[in-house]
Amino acid sequence: MTDFSAWTQACQARIEGVLAECLPASRIAPQRLHEAMRYAVLGGGKRVRPLLAFAAGEVSGADVGRVQHAAAAVELIHAYSLVHDDMPAMDDDALRRGKPTVHVEFDEATALLVGDALQSLAFDILASQPLADDAATQLKMVQLLAQASGSRGMAGGQAIDLASVGKPLDLTELEFMHIHKTGALIRAAVLLGAHCGSLDETAHTSLDHYAKCIGLAFQVVDDVLDAEASTATLGKTAGKDAADNKPTYVSLLGVTRARELAQELRADAHAALAELGAPAERLRQLADFVVERTF
Amino acid sequence: MTDFSAWTQACQARIEGVLAECLPASRIAPQRLHEAMRYAVLGGGKRVRPLLAFAAGEVSGADVGRVQHAAAAVELIHAYSLVHDDMPAMDDDALRRGKPTVHVEFDEATALLVGDALQSLAFDILASQPLADDAATQLKMVQLLAQASGSRGMAGGQAIDLASVGKPLDLTELEFMHIHKTGALIRAAVLLGAHCGSLDETAHTSLDHYAKCIGLAFQVVDDVLDAEASTATLGKTAGKDAADNKPTYVSLLGVTRARELAQELRADAHAALAELGAPAERLRQLADFVVERTF
Repeated sequence: MTDFSAWTQACQARIEGVLAECLPASRIAPQRLHEAMRYAVLGGGKRVRPLLAFAAGEVSGADVGRVQHAAAAVELIHAYSLVHDDMPAMDDDALRRGKPTVHVEFDEATALLVGDALQSLAFDILASQPLADDAATQLKMVQLLAQASGSRGMAGGQAIDLASVGKPLDLTELEFMHIHKTGALIRAAVLLGAHCGSLDETAHTSLDHYAKCIGLAFQVVDDVLDAEASTATLGKTAGKDAADNKPTYVSLLGVTRARELAQELRADAHAALAELGAPAERLRQLADFVVERTF
Repeated sequence: MTDFSAWTQACQARIEGVLAECLPASRIAPQRLHEAMRYAVLGGGKRVRPLLAFAAGEVSGADVGRVQHAAAAVELIHAYSLVHDDMPAMDDDALRRGKPTVHVEFDEATALLVGDALQSLAFDILASQPLADDAATQLKMVQLLAQASGSRGMAGGQAIDLASVGKPLDLTELEFMHIHKTGALIRAAVLLGAHCGSLDETAHTSLDHYAKCIGLAFQVVDDVLDAEASTATLGKTAGKDAADNKPTYVSLLGVTRARELAQELRADAHAALAELGAPAERLRQLADFVVERTF
């Protein structure tokens, strides 16, 4: 088994190539929209969701040529949500991955359409590429991603997030928000990767539990990093949540307890993988990566 | 055969019921988002795309219980595009179907998320409901709608539209824009309705040609109505295109020639249906309706 860092780099290079190929070329009309879509998606990001999809695909013995397209679909949904989230009507952020956000580099109307078109492209890929053993499974994958993205998934989480600004949320409410806002799509990444191969119901349930722990851990660590790191390290505006008076794991628990919570969630994630043996090693490493990352 | 007006009313009532059922209830969290989604979709609109889907379903002998869900998916894409289109970053319109637009009635962030979540819901329905004879056909339907919605379909058409403000487009460029902006989704409505039943390739090609004519006719008539009608009759701000210095069929051709063009497109649409016989009667009536409508 190659070391974790070599594996992530190989996956990141692969997903970058697939995304570059799936996104319409900038020379195709409407050029400016396609240029902005490529700007929004390519050349940056940790690609955590694709990494999770690739790792889950290893558990189900999936062909990596299939998984890469499922991973691309999930990453496009993630990318669209960042573009819309950064807009003045939402978080009003000028910096993302160390570059001007799409509405700053282009304009607001283009950013709106970029997000809309990236979402369509995600479903186009999921329906067009051969991804699963049969069409019925692939339809289920479309359904999974649609539900993870919609009002009872990611978009719903963002609505709850917006409604929470300046409001005292308790831990249960904060968790409810994050299960939707980031958790739903992370779960989709894991399950879509797994669906490209074949697994029994018990294994799917284990992966589902793993994904839930990782999703929350990811957010807890994000809050810790946002509270502690500098803008230069993060590549996005730091300390923004506190400035916006948004409830976070750090504001509710303090940094020390938030760090402990992330460790507990990592342990839970590992425990969920216990029955899956050696093929789940990448998922274990990803749990470590999510909790130990500094950016 | 019941008369056309009774048929459209029955279809409109049916699609209203299906949409009301597919949209999450306002009491489900996040309540405000779900309330705004229902506000955006329910209780208005001519439902032209669902009518086209129902009529195309009659040609392919499709079960209406299937077609209604394909029709709902297309209408949700249309509804989301209106919500985003009306936002200040795009057309900045305060009135739609005689009611305040979503960002006016709620707020901009909610309008953004409403559009995003309606798009996801469309694909959720298309993947979850039993719509076609086999899963492979249904996957093809997802692909069709995704491509019609994306950067080489509706969203792309809006990008071209934005880029055209204040620019002298010729007729070819205007047509290119509308084939994307409205034509792609109207084509998807017809083809999705047809895919719920079964038809040979030749018939699909005829329907495709019909849809292209109807899509353009719809836009030509829209331009004529926008130039002539009052805000009260239209239920949206009239004369806006001229005020925004947007090229339209009326600004390029004048009202008289634009009306003639609509009639020619109607004749072409009828001709495309010639081989399809009696089951295509509703599609013929819809071509007449699209050209003769006054609102």
